[in-house]
Amino acid sequence: MITIIKNGTIITAGDTIGADILIENGLISAIGKDFPEAGADEVIDASGMYIMPGGIDPHTHLDMPFGGTVSSDDFFTGHKAAAFGGTTCHIDFAIQQKGHSMIDAIKTWKKKAEGKAAIDYSFHVALTDPVESSVEEIPNLLTEGVSSLKIFMAYKGAFQVDDTTFMKAMKKSAAHGLTTMVHAENGDAIALLTEELLKAGNTAMGYHNVAHSAAIEAEATARAVSFVEITNAPLYIVHIACKDGLEAVRNGRRKGLPVMGETCVQYTYLTDQHIATADFEGAKYICSPPPKSKDDQIAVWEALRDNTVQTVATDHCPFWFDGTKEGRTPGKELGKESWAKVPNGVPGIEDRLPVMWHLGVNSGKISPNRFVEITSTNPAKIFGLYPQKGTISVGAHADLVIFDPEKEHTISAETHHMNVDYNCYEGMTVKGWPKQVMVRGKTLVKDGEWLGAQGYGEFIPRKSFNKIV
Amino acid sequence: MITIIKNGTIITAGDTIGADILIENGLISAIGKDFPEAGADEVIDASGMYIMPGGIDPHTHLDMPFGGTVSSDDFFTGHKAAAFGGTTCHIDFAIQQKGHSMIDAIKTWKKKAEGKAAIDYSFHVALTDPVESSVEEIPNLLTEGVSSLKIFMAYKGAFQVDDTTFMKAMKKSAAHGLTTMVHAENGDAIALLTEELLKAGNTAMGYHNVAHSAAIEAEATARAVSFVEITNAPLYIVHIACKDGLEAVRNGRRKGLPVMGETCVQYTYLTDQHIATADFEGAKYICSPPPKSKDDQIAVWEALRDNTVQTVATDHCPFWFDGTKEGRTPGKELGKESWAKVPNGVPGIEDRLPVMWHLGVNSGKISPNRFVEITSTNPAKIFGLYPQKGTISVGAHADLVIFDPEKEHTISAETHHMNVDYNCYEGMTVKGWPKQVMVRGKTLVKDGEWLGAQGYGEFIPRKSFNKIV
Amino acid sequence: MITIIKNGTIITAGDTIGADILIENGLISAIGKDFPEAGADEVIDASGMYIMPGGIDPHTHLDMPFGGTVSSDDFFTGHKAAAFGGTTCHIDFAIQQKGHSMIDAIKTWKKKAEGKAAIDYSFHVALTDPVESSVEEIPNLLTEGVSSLKIFMAYKGAFQVDDTTFMKAMKKSAAHGLTTMVHAENGDAIALLTEELLKAGNTAMGYHNVAHSAAIEAEATARAVSFVEITNAPLYIVHIACKDGLEAVRNGRRKGLPVMGETCVQYTYLTDQHIATADFEGAKYICSPPPKSKDDQIAVWEALRDNTVQTVATDHCPFWFDGTKEGRTPGKELGKESWAKVPNGVPGIEDRLPVMWHLGVNSGKISPNRFVEITSTNPAKIFGLYPQKGTISVGAHADLVIFDPEKEHTISAETHHMNVDYNCYEGMTVKGWPKQVMVRGKTLVKDGEWLGAQGYGEFIPRKSFNKIV
Amino acid sequence: MITIIKNGTIITAGDTIGADILIENGLISAIGKDFPEAGADEVIDASGMYIMPGGIDPHTHLDMPFGGTVSSDDFFTGHKAAAFGGTTCHIDFAIQQKGHSMIDAIKTWKKKAEGKAAIDYSFHVALTDPVESSVEEIPNLLTEGVSSLKIFMAYKGAFQVDDTTFMKAMKKSAAHGLTTMVHAENGDAIALLTEELLKAGNTAMGYHNVAHSAAIEAEATARAVSFVEITNAPLYIVHIACKDGLEAVRNGRRKGLPVMGETCVQYTYLTDQHIATADFEGAKYICSPPPKSKDDQIAVWEALRDNTVQTVATDHCPFWFDGTKEGRTPGKELGKESWAKVPNGVPGIEDRLPVMWHLGVNSGKISPNRFVEITSTNPAKIFGLYPQKGTISVGAHADLVIFDPEKEHTISAETHHMNVDYNCYEGMTVKGWPKQVMVRGKTLVKDGEWLGAQGYGEFIPRKSFNKIV
Repeated sequence: MITIIKNGTIITAGDTIGADILIENGLISAIGKDFPEAGADEVIDASGMYIMPGGIDPHTHLDMPFGGTVSSDDFFTGHKAAAFGGTTCHIDFAIQQKGHSMIDAIKTWKKKAEGKAAIDYSFHVALTDPVESSVEEIPNLLTEGVSSLKIFMAYKGAFQVDDTTFMKAMKKSAAHGLTTMVHAENGDAIALLTEELLKAGNTAMGYHNVAHSAAIEAEATARAVSFVEITNAPLYIVHIACKDGLEAVRNGRRKGLPVMGETCVQYTYLTDQHIATADFEGAKYICSPPPKSKDDQIAVWEALRDNTVQTVATDHCPFWFDGTKEGRTPGKELGKESWAKVPNGVPGIEDRLPVMWHLGVNSGKISPNRFVEITSTNPAKIFGLYPQKGTISVGAHADLVIFDPEKEHTISAETHHMNVDYNCYEGMTVKGWPKQVMVRGKTLVKDGEWLGAQGYGEFIPRKSFNKIV
Repeated sequence: MITIIKNGTIITAGDTIGADILIENGLISAIGKDFPEAGADEVIDASGMYIMPGGIDPHTHLDMPFGGTVSSDDFFTGHKAAAFGGTTCHIDFAIQQKGHSMIDAIKTWKKKAEGKAAIDYSFHVALTDPVESSVEEIPNLLTEGVSSLKIFMAYKGAFQVDDTTFMKAMKKSAAHGLTTMVHAENGDAIALLTEELLKAGNTAMGYHNVAHSAAIEAEATARAVSFVEITNAPLYIVHIACKDGLEAVRNGRRKGLPVMGETCVQYTYLTDQHIATADFEGAKYICSPPPKSKDDQIAVWEALRDNTVQTVATDHCPFWFDGTKEGRTPGKELGKESWAKVPNGVPGIEDRLPVMWHLGVNSGKISPNRFVEITSTNPAKIFGLYPQKGTISVGAHADLVIFDPEKEHTISAETHHMNVDYNCYEGMTVKGWPKQVMVRGKTLVKDGEWLGAQGYGEFIPRKSFNKIV
Repeated sequence: MITIIKNGTIITAGDTIGADILIENGLISAIGKDFPEAGADEVIDASGMYIMPGGIDPHTHLDMPFGGTVSSDDFFTGHKAAAFGGTTCHIDFAIQQKGHSMIDAIKTWKKKAEGKAAIDYSFHVALTDPVESSVEEIPNLLTEGVSSLKIFMAYKGAFQVDDTTFMKAMKKSAAHGLTTMVHAENGDAIALLTEELLKAGNTAMGYHNVAHSAAIEAEATARAVSFVEITNAPLYIVHIACKDGLEAVRNGRRKGLPVMGETCVQYTYLTDQHIATADFEGAKYICSPPPKSKDDQIAVWEALRDNTVQTVATDHCPFWFDGTKEGRTPGKELGKESWAKVPNGVPGIEDRLPVMWHLGVNSGKISPNRFVEITSTNPAKIFGLYPQKGTISVGAHADLVIFDPEKEHTISAETHHMNVDYNCYEGMTVKGWPKQVMVRGKTLVKDGEWLGAQGYGEFIPRKSFNKIV
Repeated sequence: MITIIKNGTIITAGDTIGADILIENGLISAIGKDFPEAGADEVIDASGMYIMPGGIDPHTHLDMPFGGTVSSDDFFTGHKAAAFGGTTCHIDFAIQQKGHSMIDAIKTWKKKAEGKAAIDYSFHVALTDPVESSVEEIPNLLTEGVSSLKIFMAYKGAFQVDDTTFMKAMKKSAAHGLTTMVHAENGDAIALLTEELLKAGNTAMGYHNVAHSAAIEAEATARAVSFVEITNAPLYIVHIACKDGLEAVRNGRRKGLPVMGETCVQYTYLTDQHIATADFEGAKYICSPPPKSKDDQIAVWEALRDNTVQTVATDHCPFWFDGTKEGRTPGKELGKESWAKVPNGVPGIEDRLPVMWHLGVNSGKISPNRFVEITSTNPAKIFGLYPQKGTISVGAHADLVIFDPEKEHTISAETHHMNVDYNCYEGMTVKGWPKQVMVRGKTLVKDGEWLGAQGYGEFIPRKSFNKIV
């Protein structure tokens, strides 16, 4: 199978080049000009289009049991939605159960994806049982194709582990070529404030932000950065949403520490005002850490520009706003009585690329190259998918987005493909939209039509982390 | 008993004034000029002298059981030494024992001082048993004259308490008018690194600084400042010794948080190089947190100037360098085999004022007024001793130092009065020395002669904390 | 003449003390308790009152020719208003005329005050003719009682001098014990932008802030701080109104540079929104540098707290809002056609103390001691009036404010005593008001009644600058 | 002419890819794998080699009249040396003469290069005559292929222009698509200090750093950044060498200002200690701004990492250490009597790439991709040479370095090709060396052999600046 994409402008993290692409058997075999079209099975004219590496979402939760229910996208609906938005690969989290091994968790999650996957995928694993055997298990994870380990500093009594286990895991991971990741919020403080707030009858949605304040996130983030300084082990801090936390990462990087940061698309747009609406509407936007003040949002954009954060993810973890309808799993309505019972999470796997392009590139905040870097190249480099994925170069998977920079689209739950009844960007008209999306040379989406298939997606085993970017 | 001090220059935190002082029955009754000397019992000519409020050391450990021995100064030897150095009052720490109440600890410590005290004193109490009953006990402490409560973030398995207890104690203290204090080092990290270092055979003195690095102190300090933001309760961070920790306090204060900081005289002079000597000599300087780099030291002076720290204490906790001699308690030699067994602490209660004057005022780093503020007025204001103590004003205790700014003195263990066989400032020739020291109008030291007495010193019950300074 | 003030609470920069004050012949002769009232000419019961040193305004422009008119308060009306507001001394600016000496200017200004003065006063001098002879004249200024020299980086073509003259003046001043002061705005940029704005027809009041942006003030401020680093000469930066400028001063002080800063009461309350009103109303608030954003205002308060600025002045330079009425000098109406023709300046000499107390002390932003320090003690120390003025101590001038912390007063042009038809704080109800104000023991204002007299005020020759505070 | 480079690893700013390169008629025509070698004129086996875009030095002074002499490399010797070091293109400065136009300067400089050039080149122009006609001339520069204009804030009485002219030039340049560049040192301060130092007899080499202190550079840099904020015109600050200046640029970029920065290879290695040697040796390292403290050097590396600076240049401006020998132009010996007479400048055009690779990449401070970005891609993007030059992509000039990462080489004036008798990195053994260097497909250097030719190099007219990077 030979495909030629001609007349487009290739955008990678480093370059913007007018050139043609030759694809053979799912791989990019050459970049040049005027390839002979005779033997080609397919010739795509990309005049006026940008050709970018497919998006890689490094942080998602498909088919994720949480708070007495399960996230509403599984490995097919989520993948289909991702493809429509230009994302061709993601890394999901396999979550250890207490009393069980991490390998078990990985196996469980691999099963969730088997036969359903439509785009490529891989897994991080979360260490949630802070026992010695968990730490000892770390060196074995690579054989499962898992080269990154997540720690929670929040969710006291559930996922949260103590500082000693955290540091031990960092050291063990570093020694065996794995990258540690961390959810940085102070779980003790959240638990204390939650108890006090509920005792005082403060159940409105806006109190979620009181119990998950910027100070609470910033504290844990700064602590995590300090642990990098103390252990000298690499660390990737997920979903950073506050100014002071970003400043801690920035300072750490200025010292030369091997610390990296991720933010999420929702933090570039939503604020605490979305949660603090008068009625239950705010529940839609409850996630942890939550979006914060306008100042924090400005800081997120600064951090995207100056490379304090290297990636933008989604933390895609959708729940129905109204999960009582037939065929739905329970959703946000579980928290009608109190913010503390609202399942935490927002949808976004489909929106990430168009929203980031619109808010970032169209406004001049970031360049198209930087857009590619934070949505695809850096996730690939950091998590060991590169150069197979994350760029447009010879030998790489032909995971490509042919992007129409002029096409306008109004985002809406009415038309999106995620299996959820609301959208965080409802009504936003973005300029720039994926015209055609391919994974390993096969077109999944073209001009809004679904051409993909369940089971086409492959698990991508990952190597030891590539580098600090 | 009426005393007149004439012709001196009075230095307070705010003013430098040529005026005379009239003392009646231990209290300052008037400040003026040319008081009639007829009825005076004593007239002191202070020509050419500075008259300053007596030093108040807010952080000491006399007669303190620690690491299998006891600090070598008790409430008489320590007091006598303090008086020779111009310190007329101090606040020591009563340490709760697990399974016992804090009130018990206060009673135990009061007994240590009774009959021995030569200068005035008061107590903080340390909450070391992280049980609910400890937190519940806080409101009762004021009746014992104790208005400040200390938390340890270090000494895992001994004094350290968890973050939840820390925050609860802060809130409870704030609600009842007590100030919380904290020893900010990450005890989990210290324990982890200590275990690793010892396993690797790294027992030389210099490894103390590896296990108690700047990052470890800075992390806990930043966390503590975050807890102020989270709880909005006042906090006083003791013995800060590192640049990044100071920066965290500075940032907190800029936000308007009720956080205060203390440093110690040793951090203005010693560095990690004193500990990292080739032989056992370094053990003399082992304390926690330890003195750090030259950069950290520069930051300590900056913080003293810009009011990021409000006080300079000693954390006086002396141990014999050679405790094997007759009549001595075990000392630093306990750690001959390993830095990890060296009793932590340095002497300094006698040296604080002359060393700070010399290094600070003579060099132009701080003004004489600022010297008074950080060594006396601020400790008094912060801990509820003011205006009875901490300044020279009508109605105050006549706790005074008549200070000769021209007198030179070479500090040495040969001549100091602390009950310990070494001095951190050995050989330093300071310019400026206390000529006469009085507590409540009674002269304890005059021209190097001891005129004080065991039992003269009084316990000073403290009120609720006065203010954030 | 002997006066006793009893039962009050004395507040100085360092202390808050319940004590009585004995005044003899205009000087404070003693501070004590229960002075015998027999021989006293006057006994004032200050129960419930605070007694503070009279305010010292280090920056005013009375009877100041500017922009084709003259400021509307002279040395009597301005002094009377000052006294009503608790200010008992001020330092005005004698402005050199091109082609004339600075000594000439001082003589001219002394004449303006003679026979009119009701409170005490002194002068700075402004070097505006950037010739070698001006610099050479600096050593002679002290004999006129002038120990401070002002430089303008703004007002191109009028007062502005070049960087070389500025640095030479700093060095010469430092060598002879004078303090240099500077108005820090980039005059070249102002001139360039003004020309462009007017050419584009942008004449509305709000454009004043475009031509006098934060960047323009911050640039000059940072440059001035650099000149301190380059010359090592002391510098006092007047009327700082922007965040980035304050940060430059803060960084300079952290390095130990001898740089000090002043802000003005209007920057703690007004913002650019007051100027950018739709109609001509904004002209009232036009001054240079102008008040800026809310963020800049927050930074001003931060700087007052952390001693980045040491004083709060007024830059009192009033112009009638409607100067066309009979008996008035031309005023703000000169700029009806364009912001560029509005006389620059705001009134405030009467408002400074009550407004700062209300906004600062009542809100908890600063302590009463800090209030005294920034409004009186620091101006006195920095400009060589201390300890004669600026504190309450034996031997000092009895310049006192007996302040009623409970009395409420609504500020209004209807009732104020400044010779101007508007007030920047119109309608603000402050809590805390001067009940009685005395200069050298003589009461000028009591319970709202004027008891002062033209000609009572004295010129206070100043010594070489005392110190960096 | 067809060339194939096979088996190498291509390193660009964004990617590291194993792929082959097809070159046709000097341009890269395809990147792929296993191109048919049949029709190729030349097949290069680059196994084990890195293939990087040729270095672009954005700041050089060949054949430059200065201080009564002329820089010792002309457009042939300098080009030959550049090629040996892997640099394939540079941008030199045409300097306006007072009373003449900038177009004249460009023509003069073009003539210097004609017939001599061996690598490709282009020109910036320096506006040194601060008259209105200079500013008016700016729109005409693009027709000469010059899209960047330099301003000097230093060299008072020679190149220095006033702030108003600087800002006008920035605005005019921005309006017509040119980028302004600036040499940021405060020329007034330098002149003042120089006069004082010489008057005091301070003529030793080390005094150069007193007259060109960090504060002097930082002041001008901060001022320049402020001018970007004031004018909103893009600015590129050349050869930044101090921490505080870098901080000013960093803060400006965080605000989103269009400001960019350059540093030079010498600032990553030399310090003021090299200049302050006891004897005349220090003259070798005299340049403006000079290398500064170790702290400043650390800051330079930080800035290279976090993109505060986007490029590393050389400011190559060589003078003979001993210019008295036959055939040499006068050199550093002109300043035997005083640092103030030493011709300012250091050689480096040949050393930049190997030294940056060794100090930066081998130490782990920067990645190979970042190395390419700062030495080639960013200069090309910023100055309008991209994508013709500065990357390896289809359609680009085949300006390539085949780099042997394992080859060690000891740098020495004995073996270098620059026309100067000393080397700043004398004796440094670097690992990594250019094995083969080609410009537009033609090999100039191979295995240390010169295969280039005078006259091969071409003038590259530049377009309007591409973007802020």
